[in-house]
Amino acid sequence: MVLLVITPTENGASWRDAFRKLDPTLDVRVWPDTGALEDIEVAFVWRHPEGDLARYPNLRAVFSLGAGVDGTLGDPLYPRQVPLVRMVDPDLAVSMTEFVIAAVLRHHCDLDHYAHLQREARWEKRVRPSAAGRVVGVMGLGALGARAALALTALGFEVRGWSRTIRTVAGLETFAGEAGLSAFLAATQILVCLLPLTPETRGILDAQTFAQMPRGSHLVNVARGAHVVEGDLIAALDSGQLAGATLDVFDVEPLPAGHAFWHHPRVLITPHVASLTSVATAAILVVENLRQWRAGGALLNVVDVQRGY
Amino acid sequence: MVLLVITPTENGASWRDAFRKLDPTLDVRVWPDTGALEDIEVAFVWRHPEGDLARYPNLRAVFSLGAGVDGTLGDPLYPRQVPLVRMVDPDLAVSMTEFVIAAVLRHHCDLDHYAHLQREARWEKRVRPSAAGRVVGVMGLGALGARAALALTALGFEVRGWSRTIRTVAGLETFAGEAGLSAFLAATQILVCLLPLTPETRGILDAQTFAQMPRGSHLVNVARGAHVVEGDLIAALDSGQLAGATLDVFDVEPLPAGHAFWHHPRVLITPHVASLTSVATAAILVVENLRQWRAGGALLNVVDVQRGY
Repeated sequence: MVLLVITPTENGASWRDAFRKLDPTLDVRVWPDTGALEDIEVAFVWRHPEGDLARYPNLRAVFSLGAGVDGTLGDPLYPRQVPLVRMVDPDLAVSMTEFVIAAVLRHHCDLDHYAHLQREARWEKRVRPSAAGRVVGVMGLGALGARAALALTALGFEVRGWSRTIRTVAGLETFAGEAGLSAFLAATQILVCLLPLTPETRGILDAQTFAQMPRGSHLVNVARGAHVVEGDLIAALDSGQLAGATLDVFDVEPLPAGHAFWHHPRVLITPHVASLTSVATAAILVVENLRQWRAGGALLNVVDVQRGY
Repeated sequence: MVLLVITPTENGASWRDAFRKLDPTLDVRVWPDTGALEDIEVAFVWRHPEGDLARYPNLRAVFSLGAGVDGTLGDPLYPRQVPLVRMVDPDLAVSMTEFVIAAVLRHHCDLDHYAHLQREARWEKRVRPSAAGRVVGVMGLGALGARAALALTALGFEVRGWSRTIRTVAGLETFAGEAGLSAFLAATQILVCLLPLTPETRGILDAQTFAQMPRGSHLVNVARGAHVVEGDLIAALDSGQLAGATLDVFDVEPLPAGHAFWHHPRVLITPHVASLTSVATAAILVVENLRQWRAGGALLNVVDVQRGY
C-alpha cells in the first residue's frame, strides 16, 4: 500500500520514518516526491495545497494529522467521495485537558490579575470563591470537550456543556442548539471553546454571545480562530464585559506582528500549542487503523463530510 | 466563656459577629477592648502583639486563625503551658489545592514562557511533555500537602512527597529527613513547598537544595517566606538553575516596594492569597471545637508546641 505524507508545514520525514518503522510493508512517500500519481492509495495530510488531493485517481482514504478537519474540508476541490479520518489520539485529549485546566485555573486563581499588579509592585489581596462557586461552560462535547469538562468537574467547578445537537455526559448539565445557548451563557463565568469549526459554529463567539455572559467573564479558545469574531472580542475586553481571554488559535496563524491581540493587557496568547499531535503516539494509531482496514475491517473515526466533523 | 479576638491585621469585628451568631452564650470581645484581663479564658489570634498573651492569667486555650502557627509561637513570651489549636479547615485545603494546581500547570504548560514571548510578539512553539512525563515534588505531607499531592497525581503527574519524618500517603512515593532529601530533589522538576515553618525547615530552600534539582526546575512556595533563602533563590533564577518561581509568601509581608522579586522576570508574585481562611467556614469549626471541649471532650488539632506544628 502506498501512503503519501502531505504535511508541508510539518516535518514530513519524521512521520514517514515512524510509519515505515511501524509497518515496513507500507510504501511511504513524502510530498512533493509523489512518484506516479496513480500509485497513491492513502494520504496523510495537514495544510495540504488546495486542489492537491484531486490529483490522485486511486486515492481511497485521507487521514488528518490533527483532530480538526476544517482546514482539509475547506479545500473546495477535496474529493468528497474519499473517506476522511480525523485524529482521535487519547494523548491529544490528555494534553488538551491539561492546557484547559491550566487556563481556567490561571483565571480562577487570579494569576493574570496578580501578574498585572506585580508590574506596579502592588500588594493587594482579592478574595476568590472556591471552584464550587464558579461556573465553567464548555462548548463542544466531543472527545476533547467531554474529557476537559469531566476533569474540571473533578476539580470542583460547576461545569455546564453546550453542543449543537444534544449530548449526554454523565455528571454534566448539558444544553444544545440555538435554543439552549442563552441559558448556557447566562451562568457561564469561564467559557471554554472546544467546538469543531463548521459553517454553523464559525463566528459563534461574537458580540451577542459575549453580551449574554455575566460581566467580567473569561474566554478560553482552544478550538479554531474562526470561532471568534476578533473585533467583537476586543470590544468586549475593552468594555470590561470580558475580564480576559486565553487564546491559542487565531484567524491567521502565526498571528501577524501588528495584531491588536499581541499587546492587549487582557489577552494571553499561546502559539497553537494547547495540544500538539505527537508522532510517537499518533503514528501508531494511523498504522493500526490502516492495518485493520486492509484486513477487511471498517475505518475508525471517519468524518461526516457533510456535517464537517 | 469569654473569648478574646486578637487579630490586629484582620477584621476582628467580623469574627466576633460570626462567633456570637453561632453561639450566643459566648462573651466575645475584640482586642484591645479586653475588659478585665482575668476574664479571658480563650484567645483567637493572628499576628498578636508580642507578649500580649502572657497578660491573661486565666487563659486556657489559644486558637490560631491560620493553619501555620509559626508566627504565634515565634513570640518568646507565648505562655507555653496553654494549648494552641491550629486551623484545620477543609475549605482551606480545597483552595490551597486549587492554587497549587494553578501554579504547577501554569509552569507545566509554559504559560509564563509564552507571556514573555507575547511581550515581543514572538510566535514560537515549544514541545512539552505530558503530565505523566513531569515529576512534581511536594515538601510537607500534612493536611494541605497530602491533598495537593493527590490532586496532582489525579492529573497525571508523577508526584513524590517529602517530609521531615516518614509519612505514608497512598499512591505516593515518599521520602523523609535529611537522608531522603537528595534522592527526592534529584528528580523533582516542579517543587511545591507546603512545609510547616520550624527551626528545622527554616531556610531549607537554599542554594544547596536548588543545586540538587534538575536544571530548569520551577519552585512554588505557598508555605512561609522564611523557608526560602531569598538571595540564594535570586541567584538560582539568574543562573538558570531554576527556570521560574511562583511565590505567595515572603520574609517580610507585604513584600517591600524595592524588593528584587517584584521585577524579576522569572518570578510570579501573589500577595499571600493561595489559601485564605474564610470566616464563614472557619468560625463554625472554632465554635464546634470549643463546644465539645466545654462539654468535657478533648480539644481537636492541638499543636505540639515543642515540635512547632
